[in-house]
Amino acid sequence: MTAVAEILAAGDVGAYLETLESTLAQSVARDGGVVADVGSDVLAAGGKRLRPLLVYLTAPPESAPPVAAGVAVELVHMASLVHDDLIDGAAFRRGRASAWSRYGPEVARAAGDYLFARAFAELAEQGDIHGLAVLADACLCLARGEALQRTQAHDPDVTVQAYLERCALKTGKLFEAACVLGSRDARLAGYGLSLGIAFQIADDILDCTGDALETGKVSGTDLREGTPTLPLLLAARQDAAVRAALLGGPLDGVLISVARSGALERSRRLADRYAQRARDALDGHPRRDDLAALTYAVVDRQR
Amino acid sequence: MTAVAEILAAGDVGAYLETLESTLAQSVARDGGVVADVGSDVLAAGGKRLRPLLVYLTAPPESAPPVAAGVAVELVHMASLVHDDLIDGAAFRRGRASAWSRYGPEVARAAGDYLFARAFAELAEQGDIHGLAVLADACLCLARGEALQRTQAHDPDVTVQAYLERCALKTGKLFEAACVLGSRDARLAGYGLSLGIAFQIADDILDCTGDALETGKVSGTDLREGTPTLPLLLAARQDAAVRAALLGGPLDGVLISVARSGALERSRRLADRYAQRARDALDGHPRRDDLAALTYAVVDRQR
Repeated sequence: MTAVAEILAAGDVGAYLETLESTLAQSVARDGGVVADVGSDVLAAGGKRLRPLLVYLTAPPESAPPVAAGVAVELVHMASLVHDDLIDGAAFRRGRASAWSRYGPEVARAAGDYLFARAFAELAEQGDIHGLAVLADACLCLARGEALQRTQAHDPDVTVQAYLERCALKTGKLFEAACVLGSRDARLAGYGLSLGIAFQIADDILDCTGDALETGKVSGTDLREGTPTLPLLLAARQDAAVRAALLGGPLDGVLISVARSGALERSRRLADRYAQRARDALDGHPRRDDLAALTYAVVDRQR
Repeated sequence: MTAVAEILAAGDVGAYLETLESTLAQSVARDGGVVADVGSDVLAAGGKRLRPLLVYLTAPPESAPPVAAGVAVELVHMASLVHDDLIDGAAFRRGRASAWSRYGPEVARAAGDYLFARAFAELAEQGDIHGLAVLADACLCLARGEALQRTQAHDPDVTVQAYLERCALKTGKLFEAACVLGSRDARLAGYGLSLGIAFQIADDILDCTGDALETGKVSGTDLREGTPTLPLLLAARQDAAVRAALLGGPLDGVLISVARSGALERSRRLADRYAQRARDALDGHPRRDDLAALTYAVVDRQR
């Protein structure tokens, strides 16, 4: 994500992200015990901190950078990763042992709940009632999106519309929340939501193509789990082997069929359209250029 | 719980609990989808609604009954049950198929997250920043208590002090939150915390003695899972078979050894002490009698 690297190179945002990192570390460690250890581990594994970056970039440049809001959205994201890995049985996350494989499912479950609660506690401490309402709504959507992913599993007839709804719930709404928490301006909601959907489509393309060394994840996970992502859905429409694989059939050679079908390019075009839609929502924003650069970066990223 | 039945027979609290039940139903169903279905199922399975009852009883009698706070604490309790059953692999809850065994682990995980988020959304809608801070703190403690239970598992040398800390985190703090949310008076915190600890000790005794038909749970669960509850810890100090069972050894006849050891009576005495401590915190409360009756009821209950 070169464009993101450029944004990060700017002095102010660097200072913000440093403060964010140390505040996150304090937040997860605060109540002690094994859940705090898990939280610190997840934090140390790193991440793009894309959601706090959105909080920062959408905030009015003249006001104090909203650290608590950035911490809260990243905590919710971390909580969802811990619970995702637990339920998916994923042994690794970002090249490290995942929380559940290291500490066991009970602790991972508790740690995920703890990180969610810490997110709300951060905003409650600020007396930020508007932020709490926005965050609760995003968490509700996140949970609904995860459940939707499950009900759509192994179904090659999921419509593109239903897939996009899942992306909006699972990813878009937390991006949206980050932008609303930063800007306190409902007009930025559309930017966040479209950016999140573009991000998720790009993620789903990477899962079909990505190199495990670069992405830190084993590719083909969606196919193995029968998650009907956009590239898999589009390919399944014209390739019986892809369709059969989504239904639970053999997986050998299926990612090659997906690549040959042109589904990756068509998925990319839809990601680009959502990125464009995000840019269209930026009219007159003081950090328009940085926010627009991000829309290109999330689609072009290699990890 | 005869005393509870008597309290419930009083007109006002009956009206409150009816309103609570319908508001809970609306709350869980609100965002639709499979997570709402799970929430409605969990709700329909019933429960004592003890935490909302605490909200009601601790609230000033002259003010409007705090429905949103009652809904929020019960949603957190429901969320924790859904996640508990998922992690424990419990196939049944209150005589019905548990959420995860009916809908699968992914949906159960999402439904638990959804119920947590709905609890925060309820208070956020009321603009209740104090309530949100109290609830977030209780959720943090709940998560820490669950993790502590895991780290104490299969350890017969857990001290009574460490066991009581676990009870306070896992159960006491949400009882405390219910009382603080109802009364908005920190003086009621001690009542709720002590009552919750007494309740948990009674629960742990019931797990050693309870009839599955009456409790709706299979007894001996703690022993099978190696959870060092007070009766098991006390019995293990004088009976090598109980100690070995906690460490993972054979379970046959162990509950009989626990009963013979006198550990149940000693546990009961400690529960009574916490119930007394709860009563001692009630000085001058307008609903002192009802709240005191509850302290006897939680220790005497058969389920």
